[in-house]
Amino acid sequence: MKLRFYNAKILTMQDDKVISGEVHTDGDRISYIGGENNCGGFDREIDLSGKLILPGFKNAHTHSAMTFLRSFADDLPLNDWLYNAVFPHEAKLTEEAIYVFTKLANMEYLASGITSSFDMYFKLDSYAKANIDMGYRTVLCGSINDFGGTVDGIEEEYNKFNSLHPLISYQLGFHAEYTTKRETLEGMAKLSQKYKAPMYTHNSETQNEVEGCKERYGMTPTQLFDKLGMLEYGGGGFHCVWFDEQDMQIAKDKGLWIVTNPSSNLKLASGIAPLCEMKRRGIDRMAIGTDGAASNNCLDMFREMFLVTALQKYRENDAAAFPAFDVLRMACTGGALAMGLTDCDVLAPGKKADMAVIDLMQPNMQPIHNIPKNLVYSGTKQNIVMTVVDGKILYENGIFTTVDPQEVYSRAEKLVREICG
Amino acid sequence: MKLRFYNAKILTMQDDKVISGEVHTDGDRISYIGGENNCGGFDREIDLSGKLILPGFKNAHTHSAMTFLRSFADDLPLNDWLYNAVFPHEAKLTEEAIYVFTKLANMEYLASGITSSFDMYFKLDSYAKANIDMGYRTVLCGSINDFGGTVDGIEEEYNKFNSLHPLISYQLGFHAEYTTKRETLEGMAKLSQKYKAPMYTHNSETQNEVEGCKERYGMTPTQLFDKLGMLEYGGGGFHCVWFDEQDMQIAKDKGLWIVTNPSSNLKLASGIAPLCEMKRRGIDRMAIGTDGAASNNCLDMFREMFLVTALQKYRENDAAAFPAFDVLRMACTGGALAMGLTDCDVLAPGKKADMAVIDLMQPNMQPIHNIPKNLVYSGTKQNIVMTVVDGKILYENGIFTTVDPQEVYSRAEKLVREICG
Repeated sequence: MKLRFYNAKILTMQDDKVISGEVHTDGDRISYIGGENNCGGFDREIDLSGKLILPGFKNAHTHSAMTFLRSFADDLPLNDWLYNAVFPHEAKLTEEAIYVFTKLANMEYLASGITSSFDMYFKLDSYAKANIDMGYRTVLCGSINDFGGTVDGIEEEYNKFNSLHPLISYQLGFHAEYTTKRETLEGMAKLSQKYKAPMYTHNSETQNEVEGCKERYGMTPTQLFDKLGMLEYGGGGFHCVWFDEQDMQIAKDKGLWIVTNPSSNLKLASGIAPLCEMKRRGIDRMAIGTDGAASNNCLDMFREMFLVTALQKYRENDAAAFPAFDVLRMACTGGALAMGLTDCDVLAPGKKADMAVIDLMQPNMQPIHNIPKNLVYSGTKQNIVMTVVDGKILYENGIFTTVDPQEVYSRAEKLVREICG
Repeated sequence: MKLRFYNAKILTMQDDKVISGEVHTDGDRISYIGGENNCGGFDREIDLSGKLILPGFKNAHTHSAMTFLRSFADDLPLNDWLYNAVFPHEAKLTEEAIYVFTKLANMEYLASGITSSFDMYFKLDSYAKANIDMGYRTVLCGSINDFGGTVDGIEEEYNKFNSLHPLISYQLGFHAEYTTKRETLEGMAKLSQKYKAPMYTHNSETQNEVEGCKERYGMTPTQLFDKLGMLEYGGGGFHCVWFDEQDMQIAKDKGLWIVTNPSSNLKLASGIAPLCEMKRRGIDRMAIGTDGAASNNCLDMFREMFLVTALQKYRENDAAAFPAFDVLRMACTGGALAMGLTDCDVLAPGKKADMAVIDLMQPNMQPIHNIPKNLVYSGTKQNIVMTVVDGKILYENGIFTTVDPQEVYSRAEKLVREICG
């Protein structure tokens, strides 16, 4: 399939310039970016009439199938939420349920211009099938902990899902320090070293988590992971709200990705990650995640982008903190690199054709003083008119091209009644 | 015009129950709410196919015409923002500019399900004309300060705009303590007492503002307004971030409305209003505003609703703080009552037909465990399919029925270039 997008405004994210011209695709790749060039031979030519095309947003931390708990377990204290609302119902998830609830999440991503997700959950065969069936790009993340999984099983997943399908890849990961015994952490460290592979986990999401780790090991989770040799090939932490100076130094030295989840961290009263402080200490690897729908509850990169900067402005008591373009770079480029999608970071010939199209002719995007600022400060899902993954249009003007929404909604509703009553 | 909305889910906001049935309108009023009732005689019958109809959101604090500065003056320290970016350009606003930029804001409100705004700015004739021409409901708010306006002028506006048109009303107001000399405040107090009218102003938005007032008067702004007799007939404060215990007691005793603007308060690094603390002290009059597009920059009630509760959860360190339905009541009902629109607060026969229609069959609204929670935690502008003001459909499936968007965008762009260069 060869596509031509013309009369476009283009933000490649190689820099902050918006250029006018065309983007062409050939199969899963971008084949041309530049001025007017009607070279012919296209399967479809799309007049964007001044709309903006940019790299799709990357959701660098989520648990997609948790859509089934959206609005089921809110306004509860954290422990009630986790132990009475989340865990007992997760235990009832079938392969079919995982498949359907993952598709529901993917639809929401596409409607928000998100073209790939870094997804930590279980029953990964159903996960992979949902993504492949929809044509959606996903990096699966290991989630071993004391309640499920073995290090051998993680190794098997690593090899299996990294050779299954071009849309699927896999990174080593475990749930968190507070749910995973030392022996397992040590096994994971060996696996990371065997495959020279980065390591990902929930890290320092809550103050309690860090305090608990200090009681167990006399050090923070980041310091523990470093000591155990888990970070020799980099990786990343999800949340990273309660990092101390030494944690930041380790993150900088090991090249860890800081994946922030601002809505979830507010809604679960976890805190505000010290991103400006991290920047001042030289950490420049940052990405954004929505977290799962049981925590956030909206899988919407626009809300997250606004909150990344607005919460830093609040935290630093400085309205000039964390400029908009830095946030946009996290959402488009940082997320891709954080999850190992090195061909999905910017728009350029040879890169993957994972793109979002934004309608600027809507009231919240007018007037146009500065397009990146409009995206970060006043952009909403309403502005997304097209989402392209791997060179295929998966969402266009409210229509999903690879999934039947009514079927997903009705299957999801039936499954939810079975699981949650 | 008589409209029939059938096959609807209905949230009247008289309580948190969602009922199935119909809503009928006759002119500017609701004439029927209840079960199936095809009584005939309608100008249009609309099958909502299970969509949700509820009272429109009320934007209880904004400066609509400031859309012209969207994305022009971000990422600046507060003083630079106000004195170098905002004030010099505001001085260049013509009557035409006010008219066009107000229309642009109103379009954004309609696309977000907002049916009326409490709007503080200047050149109010152009404001009123923009609203009347679009059919949009606005409560204008006096904005006298040391740089413009007289108490006599405010009295004239009060009488003029409260009898001009059914869609327009006016409340007494002044910009803020820090911009308004004591003599003017005393004059406004007399005006309030003469008309037995409530009084509105920016109040305790920043810590500096409160400290400055204490230096000038030895007391906080709220205590000063109370002492000057400005609050004898109630009224409200915009922002109210830095209220102390005595301020809260005055707010409770005088029945003041607390209008919170969470996005603006984050983005300008002003702080987080202590809404839970206010509630604990018995304050139940609360509403939500977007503030102007130079501060926020998105005129979107969904973002504000999420932040009202999420920031309280963070501030209180309690994931159970400020339940979703309390937020929804602020957005729909509290806002109406705060600005004196006592006929726009809930859906009921005899009330004004100011309503929003929400498409629940979109991924972020599925599954449906709890509709009010879905609205507050995962709702977005994308879900708004219709907005009705005064019994007229002003927005339907992305189409504005009383304004030509392309004309507004191109006039706005031209005016912005003249004003901002």
